This record gives sequence, structure tokens and C-alpha cells, in this order.
Amino acid sequence: MKVSTAPKLNKVEITSDFWRRYRQLVVKEVLPYQWAVMNDEADISIAADPQNNGQDKNSHAVANLKIAAGKMKGHHYGFPFQDTDVYKWLEAAAYSFSYHQDADLKKITDSLIDLIADTQEDDGYLSTLFQIDEPKRKFKRLQQSHELYTMGHYIEAGVAYYNATGNQKSLDIAVKMADCIDNNFGSDDGKIHGYDGHPEIELALSRLYEVTNEARYLKLAHYFLNQRGQNPDFFDKQNEVDGIERDLIVNMRSMPRTYYLAAEPIKDQQTVQGHAVRVVYLCTGMAYVARYTGDKDLLAACDRFWNDIVKRQMYITGNIGSTTTGEAVTYDYDLPNDTMYGETCASVGMSFFARQMLNIKAKGEYGDVLEKELFNGALSGMSLDGKHFFYVNPLEADPKASKLNPGKSHVLTQRADWFGCACCPANLARLITSVDQYLYTVTDDAILSHQFIANNAEFDNEITISQTNNFPWDGEIKYDIKNHNNIAFKFGIRIPAWSQNFELTVNGNETNAEIVDGFIYLDITNSEAIELRLDMTTKFMRSNNRVNADYGKTAIQRGPIVYAAEEADNEAPLWNYKVETAKTPSYEYDASLLNGVGVLNVKARKQVLDSIDTPLYTRIADMPEEKETTLTLVPYYSWANRSDGQMSVWLNK
Amino acid sequence: MKVSTAPKLNKVEITSDFWRRYRQLVVKEVLPYQWAVMNDEADISIAADPQNNGQDKNSHAVANLKIAAGKMKGHHYGFPFQDTDVYKWLEAAAYSFSYHQDADLKKITDSLIDLIADTQEDDGYLSTLFQIDEPKRKFKRLQQSHELYTMGHYIEAGVAYYNATGNQKSLDIAVKMADCIDNNFGSDDGKIHGYDGHPEIELALSRLYEVTNEARYLKLAHYFLNQRGQNPDFFDKQNEVDGIERDLIVNMRSMPRTYYLAAEPIKDQQTVQGHAVRVVYLCTGMAYVARYTGDKDLLAACDRFWNDIVKRQMYITGNIGSTTTGEAVTYDYDLPNDTMYGETCASVGMSFFARQMLNIKAKGEYGDVLEKELFNGALSGMSLDGKHFFYVNPLEADPKASKLNPGKSHVLTQRADWFGCACCPANLARLITSVDQYLYTVTDDAILSHQFIANNAEFDNEITISQTNNFPWDGEIKYDIKNHNNIAFKFGIRIPAWSQNFELTVNGNETNAEIVDGFIYLDITNSEAIELRLDMTTKFMRSNNRVNADYGKTAIQRGPIVYAAEEADNEAPLWNYKVETAKTPSYEYDASLLNGVGVLNVKARKQVLDSIDTPLYTRIADMPEEKETTLTLVPYYSWANRSDGQMSVWLNK
Repeated sequence: MKVSTAPKLNKVEITSDFWRRYRQLVVKEVLPYQWAVMNDEADISIAADPQNNGQDKNSHAVANLKIAAGKMKGHHYGFPFQDTDVYKWLEAAAYSFSYHQDADLKKITDSLIDLIADTQEDDGYLSTLFQIDEPKRKFKRLQQSHELYTMGHYIEAGVAYYNATGNQKSLDIAVKMADCIDNNFGSDDGKIHGYDGHPEIELALSRLYEVTNEARYLKLAHYFLNQRGQNPDFFDKQNEVDGIERDLIVNMRSMPRTYYLAAEPIKDQQTVQGHAVRVVYLCTGMAYVARYTGDKDLLAACDRFWNDIVKRQMYITGNIGSTTTGEAVTYDYDLPNDTMYGETCASVGMSFFARQMLNIKAKGEYGDVLEKELFNGALSGMSLDGKHFFYVNPLEADPKASKLNPGKSHVLTQRADWFGCACCPANLARLITSVDQYLYTVTDDAILSHQFIANNAEFDNEITISQTNNFPWDGEIKYDIKNHNNIAFKFGIRIPAWSQNFELTVNGNETNAEIVDGFIYLDITNSEAIELRLDMTTKFMRSNNRVNADYGKTAIQRGPIVYAAEEADNEAPLWNYKVETAKTPSYEYDASLLNGVGVLNVKARKQVLDSIDTPLYTRIADMPEEKETTLTLVPYYSWANRSDGQMSVWLNK
Repeated sequence: MKVSTAPKLNKVEITSDFWRRYRQLVVKEVLPYQWAVMNDEADISIAADPQNNGQDKNSHAVANLKIAAGKMKGHHYGFPFQDTDVYKWLEAAAYSFSYHQDADLKKITDSLIDLIADTQEDDGYLSTLFQIDEPKRKFKRLQQSHELYTMGHYIEAGVAYYNATGNQKSLDIAVKMADCIDNNFGSDDGKIHGYDGHPEIELALSRLYEVTNEARYLKLAHYFLNQRGQNPDFFDKQNEVDGIERDLIVNMRSMPRTYYLAAEPIKDQQTVQGHAVRVVYLCTGMAYVARYTGDKDLLAACDRFWNDIVKRQMYITGNIGSTTTGEAVTYDYDLPNDTMYGETCASVGMSFFARQMLNIKAKGEYGDVLEKELFNGALSGMSLDGKHFFYVNPLEADPKASKLNPGKSHVLTQRADWFGCACCPANLARLITSVDQYLYTVTDDAILSHQFIANNAEFDNEITISQTNNFPWDGEIKYDIKNHNNIAFKFGIRIPAWSQNFELTVNGNETNAEIVDGFIYLDITNSEAIELRLDMTTKFMRSNNRVNADYGKTAIQRGPIVYAAEEADNEAPLWNYKVETAKTPSYEYDASLLNGVGVLNVKARKQVLDSIDTPLYTRIADMPEEKETTLTLVPYYSWANRSDGQMSVWLNK
């Protein structure tokens, strides 16, 4: 690794009104709520969605840890990876301390670290299902066990907690865990030549490597990536030895190898396949390891998978996953809006991947996608009250269809209290509390500002950068760079793909710098006042016409925000509106609506609804009358916070 | 029942080229092929569709009968209703004797009757699964057993075979069977107060009543209809007594009561629900019994269900069933084209229902729907070679989607050799061999000619009606009525909904008779030469705009034939064409294509396909160029007889 010539980033304080609200919400509502749920102290109902796994009102996640630690009697309850709900919550709490010191919360999290330490076995192993109920099956059914996935999530939490609080125990647990895995997996004789059914450990070990500098962890992460798919029957053979019928998760054995991204080695895989969250977690691990090792095959795979996702498998909101079967991607350009999946975790994971790709290369597209996730696909996963969550994020929804057409029963039209498989709520919480870590990337020779989330940042040499704006509602972005020591560095500002028109001034003077791979670079040697004016005109978007589902339709975007029509604002059915794309929409910020959102009013023509006595099929000569009307649109992330009803991102035109 | 004043119909000989080809195909190819399959003598592969039930290459249907008759050793194999494949085939063969005497086939079918008689138990019971492997569970798990469904299918076959050949044994078996059911079911103490999970016995008993005049059978059919849904937990209680886990068909227990049409009494049910084939079989039984008993509640339910299906739940091709889950209807106006079901059997059953509704009331709509099924939704179930079959009939198909999107895996894009649940192939065969029975309805005071399938028909009093035409390709329909005895009767001719424009002459003179409920009535007293000229212009159709899936699209129809675009004729993707509905399509009959079809060429604009390097989402300002082109369309029933590829009925416009 080259040492960067650009000043090191030390601290970021988020000042954005938009994000401060979300981050305070997580501190005040989300973390206490989720802690209560995981301690079985909240009065919740669990959504009867396909991931329910028959769970009732209990999470039991903390209880599992207590039982495994010998502090409670009982059996494990829930999914094999139930522990990870706690770890992701712990990680979210750790990040929150950077902007909200909370002694009460700290007491809880310190005790939680103690509990986890007590639960961990002497050899470093930790997975409560196996410790409590299946001690002889450790590492024996990796297709389904999620043991490395589970420990990976602890390692991430432990690293984060150590970084946030200096709690040595939290790091020690992670180190002991990684050593346990290193002792059990690898190419040496006697070790398991395999990998987990769910990628995660690769990115977790990379993060542990970053904090410990222990090369073994990076090497082990690299091993897992290289080993994946080398022996496509690895899981099958393990299952046979373990007892073929003794599944840990019903129906998982029947999933194809592609579901686990284990059908072929990564270097041979040309397109992304399988479970969407596995895809983006794997990609994130690949990007970490590729960067630290320089492995060219891995770097090429990162590019290949990135392009396949972003150019051919991603919804306009950043959501990923076209089918509920296997919660999976399907094939290039297959992006149905009403039967899709678009799991919140996949958008969270895609944010991880984008951030790591920015570390590999200063390419604006990575920042574009990160922004797309932050303001749309990921954020949609949580209600404005912080206590209701989407697992599935559709782009077209209809309560009647969800209730009465079984092919859409996985599409909830109101966020749920909790899930049997509760991976999403805490995953989104940790993204929000750590969003300050997603704003800058310091490359070999530049500071990149790729997100327009207002903040005050401190760098080495007393350099500070203060970004002020009212983004995402306004496009005026101001940078106040203080550089009293006159350090020379490059400052790269992302010009979003949605703003090909922009104005940029430095100390009031227009610049003529060119865009290089999505960034404009300024040579900074003094304190500077930079003003960027982004193009916030409303854009009517279309899909590449290889996408069947969106043909002849338009989605409407303003800045980074993708808009949606909701029945709360517009008389159903929503498909009866034809947007008039030649007319300019009006925009107004409404502080009283949905915690404050920019609202679009779009001219449209609406067909008079046919009577129920109108024949089902008639000649097009008998078209119903069309009336001039207005469609009111709200940001996609804010949908389903009012009355239950239809919603659509793609509109007829 | 009033005695009709109209002459009784005695015989119909089909002369239509279109239907003669199909009927010869059934005799020459379909019946021998299906007989070979059911005897496990054909080299077939069974489609890996959701109905497969794990069956391999064997049908075993005839073997089950032989085993139950003690002529072979072994166990039952296949679905509980495997026997019905044989019975429907026998029924198809029986009808074929009316136009093709075949001594070899007759030898086989006579022997089959003997085998069935040998299989039948002394008390009349016949269901090989229970006779061979579960003798203690007879009538104990009617939710899943299909015993009355199975015996109902024999009764239909037995009646048909007796009518066709005079074979008394075939009728005796049916009578004995009905007596067995009558002894076991009914309101009397000690009898089972229940009904079969799958309607069929109701229509079968009605047919037996027609041939025997035995009122007990009609009464029993009426009992089953009235009892249905009166005790919604009937199946649950039976399952408990039988042993809750001892399912006969995996997953059937978890189906909702609506799946079985057993959630509430028929008279209370406002909309159709559940398994589409159960719906139309039940409706057919309802229509029979309503007519014979005059039961007003049943008559009202017939009208209600008919309207709900035809006005709100039917595809333009006549197909029914919007979801693969439970092979079911969903809710009003929910008619997705790519994830739909549209089972061949549902269209066959809808033809039964339509025919019975014509017996209740002379309403052209019933003839319209019957025609729609015969020329589209039902006929699509068989390939032109008679040896390949569709179970599911989609209106939009894409081999890539069927292969790679699990939500469409039930949609085959090429017809299969056979199915694990092989209900459709023989069902369609019996419809085709009996199509002569679907052309005339003799009402209280009129002969109705509601189908334009050329034929020679003989009535009482030496009246003959010869209908000649080249339908469905041409719209000139000629009737030559010979009425040497100068009998006075009304002759009703259906004016199809698709032909609001028409010309009608009697002996060369224009008539000014008005259309009454879809029919024009002529008073006949002499021999007459009638000429009807139907409107065969190509029609661009649309859906009622309450249908989301078809919004902004058009389907193209000429006469009764609904057309489809196939990749065999048009460069994919098919969604990139916009039909120019203002331009007149050209039509030409091509004798060399698909056994002779009328081909439509429609003007269209086609977008140049975006590059794979084009971003997935761009501004609509950057629209791809459109080019003038022509879309070639073939009849829907004939699709998937060439190379595998995309197909679409609804086209962008």
C-alpha cells in the first residue's frame, strides 16, 4: 500500500438536518426499541412473511446468549444466526457514541460485551445455537449454520465498539474468534477446506486486519474468497456426513449452489447470481481483500460484479433482488416492480460495497450508487417513527394484491414491527449511525467529497472542511475549507450523474476544471470557499429498453431522490394516470408532511375508470375519457407512512 | 321440465376443415399416444413443473387398475386421482366413435370396461389408491382423496360409452358406483354429511340422471351442492380422525378453505374463489342441477359466478386462473399475463359451464365464451402434433424468464410430453371428440345455432340443417335448412359480440330481425337458405382499465381468434414494439404455416434496442430511435409449435 499524500481524515460531525433527524431517531427510538425487542420486552407482532420461520412474538436473541453463557436455562430459539441481531445492534450503538454520548446506553453495551465474553468458549467459538443445542455439529453444516457469518457480525461489532469506546475486551473477543476460525479453516491438512454458506466473515476479517494489522486475518479472508466454489460439492458432502435430513433451516438444502455463490470460483463467475445479500456481502469482502492484496483476479471480479449489478440488476431506487424465491437476483434486466424483493439488507450491503469500491478507485459512479442507496433503497427500510421496518422494498405495491395474489404475499404494504428473520432493522440502524464514515474517501493523493450530506470534518494538519447545504432538497453545496498551514492537496468533488449541469466557483470565481471519472479536482493550498450549484430540476427517467417491466413508463427523480405516487395523495388506481412528461412539474418543500419532504406535482391525464359493467375486453375505439389532473409525488423512502394503499415508482406516460 | 316444442336434435356430423383436422388428430395420434403413456409404453419425459409430484417417466394409470383388480402385483403409483386419466381417455374414445368407427380401438375400450368392472368392488366402490393401499381410509379424507371426483369421471365416461356403443356394462358400473355413493353420503343419520374436496360428482350424477332418469342421482347431486360449505370444518375434522399428518397429497392440508370452495355455502358466496378447475366443475354441476330442479338460489349462484368469471376474472383467450399458488383465481381484475396459470382444464371446464348455461337461457354471451374457449384458451393446450401439452397457458412468455425467474418457473414455453398430474391432455381430447355436442342447443321453443363450426345436423321430423363455412378464417356462414314436412320452429343464430356489424339474408332477402340477448330468431316453416356475413375485420382490443396488467396495451383479435406475437416471426424483445392501431393490419391465410392459419401483419414502431453499455436508467430525453416495422401475428392456439422463444398476446401501443 502506498502512503497517501493527502491529509488523513480524523473526524466527521454530521450537521445535515435530514441526517441529524434520522441519527437522533436511531438514538432515541430505534436503539431502545430494538433492545427491548431482542430482550422480549416489547409488545410486537411478527410479520407473517415468508421469512417468518414460525416465530411468535419473541426474538429471544439476548436470551440465547444468556443461556449459552449458563446464566439462564432453556433452548436456543429462532434462526441459527439469531445472535447477529444483537451484534448489529451493538455495532449501531457503538457508532452512535460518536455523536451522542449516552451513559445509560454505554452501561448496557458494556454489560453486553461482558455477556458475550462469558458466552464465548475458550477456543474462541461463539454461536449460541450450537453451544446450547448442537455442540457436536460445530462447523459441520456450513451451508446452513451461518457460524462464520454470525462470528463475522460480532467481529464487525467488536471492532466498531473498540474504535468507539476503547473497550479492549470487545476487541479481544473478536481476535479470539478470528483465531478460532483460523485454527479451523484453511488449506493446511486437518483444517476444513471450506467456507460459510453466507459470506460476511471475509469483510469482517478485513476490518479486524485494519485495526490489528494482523496479516493472518487478511490471509484467511483471502483464503475464503479463493476457496469459494473451488469444490462445489463441499456443502453437499458436509450435509451427508452431518445427516442429510438434519436441516438447520427448512428448505435451504434445496437451494441451488448459485444461491450460496458456491457453484464456481469467483474468478470464473461472469454474472452475479443467487441470494442478493450474499452477493453484496461477498462483493464487499472481495473489495477489501482485493485492495489490500492487489489480487488482480479479485479486482477484476469486483469490477465485473459491480457492473452487472449496477448496469443490469439494480432498481432505480438502488434496491436489488428480483424474486422472493431465494431472496435472489435473477438475470440481467429482469426487474419486475410488483413481485420483486429488494431487501433492505441488500441495499445496506450495496452501500458497503460502494464505499469499498471508492477506496479502490476514485470513480463518481460508486458515490452515485452510495447516494442512491442512502436516500432511497436503504432508507425505505424504516418508518419515520423508527419502529416499523420493511424487509422487502417493492417499487409497485397494492394492498389488495399483497393480500389476495399469493405471488405478491411477500410484499408488505405497511412496515412491520419485527420479523422472524430480523436481519434488516439493525442493519439499517448501523448504516445510519455510521453514515459519517461514508462521506469522504482519502485516496493516494486526494480528499474525495462524494456525498452532499452537510458536515464538519477535521483532517491532519488542522485542515477542516465544513460542508453546508439543505440537501437533498436544495442543490447549493458550500464548502468552507480552512487550511491555515497551507498544505497542498487535491480536493475531489463528485458531480452526480443526475446533475450533468452544474456551476462551481472557488472564492467566487468560476472554475473550468474537467470532470474526471465523475469527480472535479481542485488544487487546494489555501483556505477556500467553494460553491457548487447542482441541477435540481425534476427529471423524467426511463429504463434501458431491455427492461420489460418499465417499458413505456417513467420514474421521476429530483436530485438523488426517487419519487413515488401513493394512494394517500392520489385516487386509485395509480395505473390509470399518464404522466405528461412535456410539462414541467412543480416542486415545494412541505415541512409539515412526512417529517418534511419535497413534494412534486406532476401534470397527468387520468382515464375515467371503466364501470364494473363495462365488458372486460372491448375495442380500443371505445376508450374511456381522459381528464387533466395532477399527480402528487413524495420521496420513495417516505412511502407507507400514512394510510395503507397503492404505491408506484414507475408511472405510465 | 317443459317439453320443448322445437324439433329434437338427433345427430351432428362435423364438416369443418378446422375441426375435422383436430378430430382426426385425436383419433390418429392423441388417443394411441395417451393410451401408450397410460400403459407405460411410451418413451416420454414428464415436465418438472410444480404439479410433478416427483413422478418419473411412468403414468402407471392402467397398472393401478390392474393391480386393484388382482391382475397384477404392486402398489398404487401417482396421484390419488390417477384413475381419472384413464376415464377421461375412455370418454374421449367413446365420443370418437361418433365420427370414426375403429374396431381395434373398440376392442381396447371394451376390454377396458371389463377391466374396470373387475376392479370395481361389490358395493360399487372404485378408487385404486384406496383399494390397493389404503382400504381402511375410504371416504375418510375427502379433502384430498378425490374419490368422488374419480368416480365422477368414471360415471361421465360410462355414460358416454353407453351412449356411443350401447355397452350396458359401462352404464352398470356407473349406476353401481352412484348407488355406492348414495349409500354412503346424504343427510340421513349414519351417512357422511360431506362432499369431495374436488367438485365433479355433481355434474357426473346429473349426466347419469339424464341417461337413467333416476331421480335419486339428481337428488344426490343437489345434496352435495347444498351441503358444500355448510360445515366449513368438515375436512379438518375428517383429517383429524384420519390422522392429521397422513396427507394423501403433500401441502394440500395447508390450502385455505376457499381453495376447495368449502368456506361458505354456495348461496352465500359472492365471488369465485380458489382452485380454478374446482370452480368451473362446480359451476357446471350447479347449472345442471339448477336447471333440473329449478332451485332459485342455485340459478342465482350460476349467474353470479358466471358474471364474476367472465366480467372480472377471465383472460381475453378464455383462460382462467391468475396464480400458480393453488392453481387459483385471485381477485377481480387481477389478470397478470406472465405469472398467470390459465390451466387447460379450466378452459375445458368453462366450456362445460357455458354449454349448461345455454341450456338454462338462450343468451349469446354463453356461446361467445364457449367459442372463445374452443378456438383459444382450451385449444392452446395441445400441440399441432397431438403429442405435447400445456398445463399452464400464459399470455406472455419468455424462455429466459421461465428458466431464471422462479416466479415464472411454472410457465413452460414449449409443450411437454406429459405431466405428473396429467389431468389436462385427456380432458382436452374429450372436448375435441365431443365438440359436435356443443353446436346446437334446443330450448323450449327454438333451435339455437351458437357455433360456426360447419356441420350437418339431423333433427326430428326429417329436418336437416347443413352449415357450411370456412370459419374461423372466413365469416360467410351458410345454412341450408331442409324442412320438407314444413314444421314450424324458431331458429336462433348467435351474433357474436365481436361482430356487431353483420348481414343476414334468408333466401336472398335481407332480414330486419332484431338481436335478442345475442341471438337473431327466424321463424322457419319451409326449407330455407340462410346466409350470415360476419364482420371479420381485425380488431384492436383493450381491457377494462381496472386491469393493471393490460393498461396501455392492445390485444388483436379477428373473428373469434385471439392473436399472439412470437419470437419465431419477430425479433425479440417483443415489448419493444408499439403497435400502430390507426393503421389497418393485413390478413392472409397461409396453408403452409402451422397446419394452415390466418396470419396478421400489423404496422408497428420498434425502438432500437439500447446497448448493454447504455445506463440502466437515463432521462427520457434520451429515447432510442424508433423504426417503422411490421409485427407478424399468429393465432394464440398455435403458438409454441416452432422454435422456443418469447410470446405475447398483449402488445404495447
